[in-house]
Amino acid sequence: MTRVRVESFTISLDGYGAGPDQDINNPLGVGGAELHQWLIPTRTIQRALFGKDGGTTAVDDDFAARGFQNVGAWILGRNMFSPIRGAWPDTSWQGWWGDSPPYHVPVFILTHHARAPIEMEGGTTFHFITGGIHEALAQARVAAAGKDVRIGGGAATIQQYLREGLIDELHIAISPILLGEGAALFAGLDLRARGYECVEFVPSEKATHVVLRRRA
Amino acid sequence: MTRVRVESFTISLDGYGAGPDQDINNPLGVGGAELHQWLIPTRTIQRALFGKDGGTTAVDDDFAARGFQNVGAWILGRNMFSPIRGAWPDTSWQGWWGDSPPYHVPVFILTHHARAPIEMEGGTTFHFITGGIHEALAQARVAAAGKDVRIGGGAATIQQYLREGLIDELHIAISPILLGEGAALFAGLDLRARGYECVEFVPSEKATHVVLRRRA
Ligand SMILES: NC(=O)c1ccc[n+]([C@@H]2O[C@H](COP(=O)([O-])OP(=O)(O)OC[C@H]3O[C@@H](n4cnc5c(N)ncnc54)[C@H](OP(=O)(O)O)[C@@H]3O)[C@@H](O)[C@H]2O)c1
Ligand SMILES: NC(=O)c1ccc[n+]([C@@H]2O[C@H](COP(=O)([O-])OP(=O)(O)OC[C@H]3O[C@@H](n4cnc5c(N)ncnc54)[C@H](OP(=O)(O)O)[C@@H]3O)[C@@H](O)[C@H]2O)c1
Repeated sequence: MTRVRVESFTISLDGYGAGPDQDINNPLGVGGAELHQWLIPTRTIQRALFGKDGGTTAVDDDFAARGFQNVGAWILGRNMFSPIRGAWPDTSWQGWWGDSPPYHVPVFILTHHARAPIEMEGGTTFHFITGGIHEALAQARVAAAGKDVRIGGGAATIQQYLREGLIDELHIAISPILLGEGAALFAGLDLRARGYECVEFVPSEKATHVVLRRRA
Repeated sequence: MTRVRVESFTISLDGYGAGPDQDINNPLGVGGAELHQWLIPTRTIQRALFGKDGGTTAVDDDFAARGFQNVGAWILGRNMFSPIRGAWPDTSWQGWWGDSPPYHVPVFILTHHARAPIEMEGGTTFHFITGGIHEALAQARVAAAGKDVRIGGGAATIQQYLREGLIDELHIAISPILLGEGAALFAGLDLRARGYECVEFVPSEKATHVVLRRRA
């Protein structure tokens, strides 16, 4: 059965999934790059993003790796895909990840600004969905063909799916930094009332990993 | 030099320092008792609250113990002292902690409802301050006589002192629970802009301990 999962989503101590003022030099907003100090050095990400061997292999890597297991499709918010706001000026922006993005499956991008799909190398196709979160999930489910759907982020996207009760499990990493402002993951969302509980709590030197799961 | 410290203040994964609907049966609000699963079993708290020997002695106890070191006065919000709201109906409420509270120094309680001081056993005196946070801190500094002032909580009290730039250091414990609603410690407060950074990040099995300090 397809499950809808959030994986490796990282928040600061003060609860932000990105800093303010995202732009081409600050994909995660000002200060946001520090969020992923646990993730970038892992063997999983070194291989997936940079094609490199090596990298850390302990708890952080275990969590990074499980994020890719059994994932048949992704859903991203438009701001995770791009720093561009408003109408697309042209079709030159194809994501942050170069010619061969680390997804290797269909990726559904929520946006109000329609665009033709982009077929990248290595099995990733970006589809732009203007019909809202339910349509994106329906298409992602079909594309996943029995595997799981991973919601990549950012916070605005995860929040919408949480509000509609559509996420089965979230792996959240808490990084030892303060961002001060930005997109707050938990703000205004009562996850306890929505039936979630913390089922794993695993520290590493660089982050605290928690898994939140909805009671069946 | 007197420093103003927050110690052992515990928040949930979603950032709350207490659950909703505090009352006599739920001093920390509904669900809030789970916050302190790291703290209550420590040797420091077993001795301080229950006069018992034994208790845990690892990381959690180290943090619990340092919270009492070199503390010459405390400041509490009225809701940490009592579940009573509005005017005091009588003088019978003397705190949650029995005849000999674990403070053993002067304690200054912020409230809009004046009350005579209460001298308890073991050196604790509760003073009720209606003149605001600056007056409470001034009085606490004098009482501390060169030792530090500990701000006990709750979130509403800590927030006010943070906004005025009056806190030097905070030890925050993050517990593996969701509270869903309540008093959010970081909400609306940009600690990064206020010059705080995370200088310690120490996991235990039951909590993640972080120390935030203001750059000098
Ligand atoms: N901390 C992490 O682990 C992590 C993970 C992923 C991303 N991030 C970061 O998070 C930041 C982005 O997060 P965010 O919360 O600002 O935004 P986001 O969720 O990535 O994207 C929000 C945007 O997506 C479009 N959108 C969302 N829902 C929609 C809907 N129902 N219908 C149509 N369009 C919809 C809208 O764009 P338009 O109206 O402009 O089309 C909206 O402004 C980036 O800095 C990214 O790098 C962090
Ligand atoms: N998580 C932890 O480690 C921890 C630690 C301590 C406490 N707590 C919990 O936190 C909860 C209380 O937190 P809270 O944020 O609700 O409240 P709080 O900070 O304890 O108390 C707020 C109250 O104090 C009085 N007050 C605060 N500032 C004042 C000012 N400047 N002037 C005059 N009066 C002022 C007001 O009461 P009046 O107007 O009614 O007088 C106000 O409603 C309790 O459940 C407590 O058990 C948790």
